[in-house]
Amino acid sequence: MIVVMDLRATEQDVASVEEVLKKFGYSCHFIRGVERLVIGAVGSGHGVPEGLEMMAGVEKIVPIMQPFKLVSREMKSEDTVIEAGMLRLGGGYFSVIAGPCAVESFTQLSVSASVVRASGAAALRGGAFKPRTSPYAFQGLEKQGLEYLAKAREETGLSIVTEVVNPSDVEQVARIADVIQIGARNMQNFPLLREVGRLRLPVLLKRGLCATVEEWLMAAEYILAEGNYNVILCERGIRTFETYTRNTLDVSAIALAKRLSHLPVIADPSHASGSWRLVRPLALASVAAGADGLLIEVHPNPATALCDGPQSLNPGHFQELMAEIEIMVKIFNKTLWRGEEKNDC
Amino acid sequence: MIVVMDLRATEQDVASVEEVLKKFGYSCHFIRGVERLVIGAVGSGHGVPEGLEMMAGVEKIVPIMQPFKLVSREMKSEDTVIEAGMLRLGGGYFSVIAGPCAVESFTQLSVSASVVRASGAAALRGGAFKPRTSPYAFQGLEKQGLEYLAKAREETGLSIVTEVVNPSDVEQVARIADVIQIGARNMQNFPLLREVGRLRLPVLLKRGLCATVEEWLMAAEYILAEGNYNVILCERGIRTFETYTRNTLDVSAIALAKRLSHLPVIADPSHASGSWRLVRPLALASVAAGADGLLIEVHPNPATALCDGPQSLNPGHFQELMAEIEIMVKIFNKTLWRGEEKNDC
Amino acid sequence: MIVVMDLRATEQDVASVEEVLKKFGYSCHFIRGVERLVIGAVGSGHGVPEGLEMMAGVEKIVPIMQPFKLVSREMKSEDTVIEAGMLRLGGGYFSVIAGPCAVESFTQLSVSASVVRASGAAALRGGAFKPRTSPYAFQGLEKQGLEYLAKAREETGLSIVTEVVNPSDVEQVARIADVIQIGARNMQNFPLLREVGRLRLPVLLKRGLCATVEEWLMAAEYILAEGNYNVILCERGIRTFETYTRNTLDVSAIALAKRLSHLPVIADPSHASGSWRLVRPLALASVAAGADGLLIEVHPNPATALCDGPQSLNPGHFQELMAEIEIMVKIFNKTLWRGEEKNDC
Amino acid sequence: MIVVMDLRATEQDVASVEEVLKKFGYSCHFIRGVERLVIGAVGSGHGVPEGLEMMAGVEKIVPIMQPFKLVSREMKSEDTVIEAGMLRLGGGYFSVIAGPCAVESFTQLSVSASVVRASGAAALRGGAFKPRTSPYAFQGLEKQGLEYLAKAREETGLSIVTEVVNPSDVEQVARIADVIQIGARNMQNFPLLREVGRLRLPVLLKRGLCATVEEWLMAAEYILAEGNYNVILCERGIRTFETYTRNTLDVSAIALAKRLSHLPVIADPSHASGSWRLVRPLALASVAAGADGLLIEVHPNPATALCDGPQSLNPGHFQELMAEIEIMVKIFNKTLWRGEEKNDC
Repeated sequence: MIVVMDLRATEQDVASVEEVLKKFGYSCHFIRGVERLVIGAVGSGHGVPEGLEMMAGVEKIVPIMQPFKLVSREMKSEDTVIEAGMLRLGGGYFSVIAGPCAVESFTQLSVSASVVRASGAAALRGGAFKPRTSPYAFQGLEKQGLEYLAKAREETGLSIVTEVVNPSDVEQVARIADVIQIGARNMQNFPLLREVGRLRLPVLLKRGLCATVEEWLMAAEYILAEGNYNVILCERGIRTFETYTRNTLDVSAIALAKRLSHLPVIADPSHASGSWRLVRPLALASVAAGADGLLIEVHPNPATALCDGPQSLNPGHFQELMAEIEIMVKIFNKTLWRGEEKNDC
Repeated sequence: MIVVMDLRATEQDVASVEEVLKKFGYSCHFIRGVERLVIGAVGSGHGVPEGLEMMAGVEKIVPIMQPFKLVSREMKSEDTVIEAGMLRLGGGYFSVIAGPCAVESFTQLSVSASVVRASGAAALRGGAFKPRTSPYAFQGLEKQGLEYLAKAREETGLSIVTEVVNPSDVEQVARIADVIQIGARNMQNFPLLREVGRLRLPVLLKRGLCATVEEWLMAAEYILAEGNYNVILCERGIRTFETYTRNTLDVSAIALAKRLSHLPVIADPSHASGSWRLVRPLALASVAAGADGLLIEVHPNPATALCDGPQSLNPGHFQELMAEIEIMVKIFNKTLWRGEEKNDC
Repeated sequence: MIVVMDLRATEQDVASVEEVLKKFGYSCHFIRGVERLVIGAVGSGHGVPEGLEMMAGVEKIVPIMQPFKLVSREMKSEDTVIEAGMLRLGGGYFSVIAGPCAVESFTQLSVSASVVRASGAAALRGGAFKPRTSPYAFQGLEKQGLEYLAKAREETGLSIVTEVVNPSDVEQVARIADVIQIGARNMQNFPLLREVGRLRLPVLLKRGLCATVEEWLMAAEYILAEGNYNVILCERGIRTFETYTRNTLDVSAIALAKRLSHLPVIADPSHASGSWRLVRPLALASVAAGADGLLIEVHPNPATALCDGPQSLNPGHFQELMAEIEIMVKIFNKTLWRGEEKNDC
Repeated sequence: MIVVMDLRATEQDVASVEEVLKKFGYSCHFIRGVERLVIGAVGSGHGVPEGLEMMAGVEKIVPIMQPFKLVSREMKSEDTVIEAGMLRLGGGYFSVIAGPCAVESFTQLSVSASVVRASGAAALRGGAFKPRTSPYAFQGLEKQGLEYLAKAREETGLSIVTEVVNPSDVEQVARIADVIQIGARNMQNFPLLREVGRLRLPVLLKRGLCATVEEWLMAAEYILAEGNYNVILCERGIRTFETYTRNTLDVSAIALAKRLSHLPVIADPSHASGSWRLVRPLALASVAAGADGLLIEVHPNPATALCDGPQSLNPGHFQELMAEIEIMVKIFNKTLWRGEEKNDC
């Protein structure tokens, strides 16, 4: 940590800062520049003395160490590979997770599942518990939705990815899901992160709408710190001033997260754009930026969807897109994974 | 709802849109402009047909009605007044809630409480459950913190405002708190909102870091929809590109929320700035923008605080600020409330 | 235009609004909903009565027509192809423009030019007039820089792309440049836009750091409205809350601009990221999102560059990237253009 | 400047960095931490070696010195006071600048001028050259507008504040204006900044829509660096994700700019909100945050304004607001300045 002192800092100010730093376990190195004194606080210390910044004579504190440990490439240089049923992600494996925003009925889910399976997806997504902006909007089928998901897995072999929003539902959802999803709005729901951290089930962690890459990695760190190392990071668009699109897909974040962390990174072009017309270019751009997978909304009949219809692909568009994804994935020397039996052929 | 059709929409496209709108309970009015056809969908309908936006020939959907009902001024024109122990907010009453970010020890809390009481605050804030970006940072004293808060109330008479982060802790926190706080990161933690909606205790709802005013009001709507009408809205700064300050206090949101809703609105200048040097100007600006109260971090010794030291006022600065707040509050014809006994004099 | 009236609007309010609309050349259609009256203003009108929004009883105005005309796909459905010397962009042609941020010396420029030519670029970029945040930073070689650019063209045949920042320099720059660049900070420098609109030379128009896609297209509209239809749109990253990267490349904007407009769209991954390590993934993502070209900073020795060194590729990295770009461009059925003689072979 | 080396930096990497730093005139201090080496580069150096960031083994560069010099409080601790005809701003003087967005006709301007004069404004604002998003919108009366402004000054004694958008118009505008305005879109139009820097006329510099406080101060630095020390900083709202308001007034920036710089700071609540209903709370909040003045749009008949009607106050609302401003200004121990003759009484 670097402490930059004010132009007008007195000897007494410097001594007080040094004293606090020592109390927290740091040793001090002093660099006297032309105008300012800079103090380098060395040592691992026990915690960060946040209050330092308001001490007399202190201009600013500059942290040097990255705050994330377990998720970092410095801790583990090789890619983490996540396996969950038919799904395989990271370390050269690329999987597509597709399906409707919400589970609406068994028929809708079953048709979706067979469509996405036929087009080459490895996992089925579908929300049984839906976090909605309005209390008056459709909130999901809950327990029944989970049962439909289990049945769809039986029918197709697809892995099941589904969201949990309440720590008290984690056990219930974990009994069905192959991958448990934490939505963007819950990226910093710390009790929920701790709860899924106690599982050994893979967790798909969406980046918050206005979370920095560092905060996103720190949220993953919460899960790893509890012992669950199976985390998939998912970029799903951030909130900016632009209004034409619902969110702004941050492809740099995909590349950055891959550099900073060993965890696999996927993208959700459906939520990022809010418009099915943009799903194709954003999906392909994500692959080109280094993504290890995609999460795509597909609905048998988007116009009548109870949720997120405008951003869902219909079966025809999805099939076309999968063909393009396959070409792209190969260029980047990755394997589009559809479960073993298919790849054996 | 207005449906704007594409330049190239066919008669068939229009007929399909009309059919869907009718199915959802709307009747259609057609406005043929020079270039485009615009359809006005009239009626309360049952739900919004989100998928409409992806139908052939549809360019965009423009919602006309505001999505919030119970929180709106149209529903209730007079100001809601919240009373909770010594605290009184809204409808001409102005209260200051002050105290440390986190409860660290009984001594720290007790000293803080007597300081803020002496300077004219009506309530004590202090976190027993702390949502922290890093899993390695101090997470709060939890149950013991709640007990200390209860003791501090006994000593000073101040109302207690404290945060809850997990739906399963709501009951425990509600037993102690006079006002239960939902933090910015939990503004769209819907299970938590529903849980506090079932209480009759006042809820202080912070605006999310990147929540629009509309989303903030919708989050309040979740609480009112469960039957709890005692909600205090709290603007605490939004995330922007500016890096000099931790967040950007949005004073317009204070004025807007007051116009759109009957609920009282307060501001948190400490989190908005992240720097104690800016707390004074932001606090006064918030009063001038129409706030009904303030939430201010005060610590007996900010330099050693375990959390948020840089943005905490010391007792001397807080006392000076309270004197200025009192003058400002009077100009706006409001009463700075410190509990009845003081105002009786 | 749709005028949404307030719940409490009186008959008199409605009559006043109607009168203003008629004065501006619109006819009115009334849609009475359950709660609100909505007025559809039909006709091309002469201008938009902005003041309407503040009339008594008016809640909001919703514009229906897109404000851009000449740049829109509705006006011209086929892609515009830009040709300027060796450069060819749009309608299936893809060109790479590369070179140093600033012209520093003839040697630096000449080496850069031969490097980028050898790797397959069609045009050389290099700033002679540099807009810099600090008045104390290197501001460019100006007239001499232009001469060096002309010499580099003679040596290599590459087209020259260079920036103009002052309307009074347009004539001078136009005498040398094959494509004249308007930088992000000048996207809404309207006198400059008009000035380059009077030329017939292609204009490369960068999107402003916080310009919406609509504002970007309106800036292009300024140039077309003066008679110059040769505009290349360039996405170069927008400003968001994220601090790891200098800006956030908005790949959705590339796809959107291609849909809304017939003009070619390119991307500048160097400025978008501010870090050479991210240039490769962002370049490839841009191609995948539909870009018709790329603008890439290349410097013979980035560590000693007077400007933007951290985001410049060295010759080796650029050559590797060009090989990957070529593969990607082919997949999207486009031709990587390097000037006729090469493609003839 | 602090150079943070990578975990894997070699001795050779460190030696190369040291060599570059020495070449730029810095001496190096090494701090070896538990994991990383940090190099403190001391000395004023000649320029910043930007390319350093891409050298092998370098993780990041942390600048220590603020980039602005002449505008900083460290350079000049006492407040700069700007005087221009009837206007006096800074150092305890507070002035209101009011008038229409655009000069539309002499009658409109003359009525506006007498209204704002009567209510206590010290200066008249009115655009003769208007930067507009659309090339098809009203662009201002130009030369004739300037003449009307001069006549309005003759009639009322008010100082004239008007915008210049083209460097070649500066001389013409400077002949009429008492204060020359640089609009938000031109905050980084460096040739324009240099041009007004050569004048001795006060310059009102608006903050760009997405400019950081540091960039805003650097833009002012351009003007001071040319010799013109008479700069008024104007906060006018920044662009954020919020869509209810046109922009988000950043009151923290007012307080911050006052701390970092000796220049007077004013606010423009009209552009910040885009809605006349919010002008009052934002104006008062700005005064409370420490502003030295206000820039307010007033139009005799906002509903028919050719530009920015929705955000203009009518004469009645402006008069009421001036009464409130006067009370607020007094609380902050400042003088509401209306020209000498009035204050002499």
